[in-house]
Amino acid sequence: MVDLFKYCPHCAGPIVYKSIPDDTHPRHVCTLCNTVHYLNPKIVTGVLPIYKEKVLLAKRAIEPRIGLWNVPAGYMENGETVEAGAERELWEEAKAKVKNIRPHLIYSIAAINQVYMLFLGELVDINFSPGEESLEVALFSEDEIPWKELAFTSSAVCITKYFENVKLKSEKVHIGQYTHPKNL
Amino acid sequence: MVDLFKYCPHCAGPIVYKSIPDDTHPRHVCTLCNTVHYLNPKIVTGVLPIYKEKVLLAKRAIEPRIGLWNVPAGYMENGETVEAGAERELWEEAKAKVKNIRPHLIYSIAAINQVYMLFLGELVDINFSPGEESLEVALFSEDEIPWKELAFTSSAVCITKYFENVKLKSEKVHIGQYTHPKNL
Repeated sequence: MVDLFKYCPHCAGPIVYKSIPDDTHPRHVCTLCNTVHYLNPKIVTGVLPIYKEKVLLAKRAIEPRIGLWNVPAGYMENGETVEAGAERELWEEAKAKVKNIRPHLIYSIAAINQVYMLFLGELVDINFSPGEESLEVALFSEDEIPWKELAFTSSAVCITKYFENVKLKSEKVHIGQYTHPKNL
Repeated sequence: MVDLFKYCPHCAGPIVYKSIPDDTHPRHVCTLCNTVHYLNPKIVTGVLPIYKEKVLLAKRAIEPRIGLWNVPAGYMENGETVEAGAERELWEEAKAKVKNIRPHLIYSIAAINQVYMLFLGELVDINFSPGEESLEVALFSEDEIPWKELAFTSSAVCITKYFENVKLKSEKVHIGQYTHPKNL
């Protein structure tokens, strides 16, 4: 992304990446209109739906990681709250709704400038079905989780910490990070 | 931001904002190289430092809201975790360090595409001092909080929920949002 940010989106002037006064970080600055363009991490928002101590996962119908299971989640959009974004993604991917949505995991992947904000919520009913981005949607108890067929490490941590909380009767909200640059 | 995104940062081609196949939202698309540019919310990350049930606030030396008090926070940067960003901002604004950093408040401002991710942490020591972006740094007990001189609603909610948690002996992590488009 940094290397590809070559022209100013405001005026099409050439961009230079340089240190600027009173700033801790170098920035992308337009050499024509002088606008400073700040590039920041993106939020992936999602919710792990719970039903009688089972959790709802969706099998991806799209790349990357097509055919693997995931906590329903996707990029947060402008103009929404992070929890509304999680509920939107759940509806898009699994045609499911939750109540009592609450924070569960904040998981940073610094290498690719992403922050997963994953919530918990109780499924309102079990009338779920695959959305356009999913091949299949299903409930899993802890011993049914397809650990080797999970799409992303964020899902594995999210599910692990949920069942850990259940055992400990805890409502702890977790922080996590992915530190290995390969095999995201 | 949407109105100003007129030229492709990759090739300087003209951008159109339009619906695209298999996407729920209209996007900014380059008419020359066809790149789809996704504009997403930004994270403001920060930490409310605690010392003997007092909290550390910083008085802003920069606009907006110069001269008003704030929970030390700022935009998360690419290449860091959200909690590391909070610790960096605390150091920049108050030359302070915390231990046991943990989530406290996720506060969305949909009208301006921001998500505040505010943590709690215990001050390591009281050798704090104003950074370049602060006029003053000080510890406040609950009855000393300068409620009418707080810079942002996120700070007011963050502090309120902290003292609420103390009274309830709770470690609840809160969700909040600012719904009024004016007077942010």
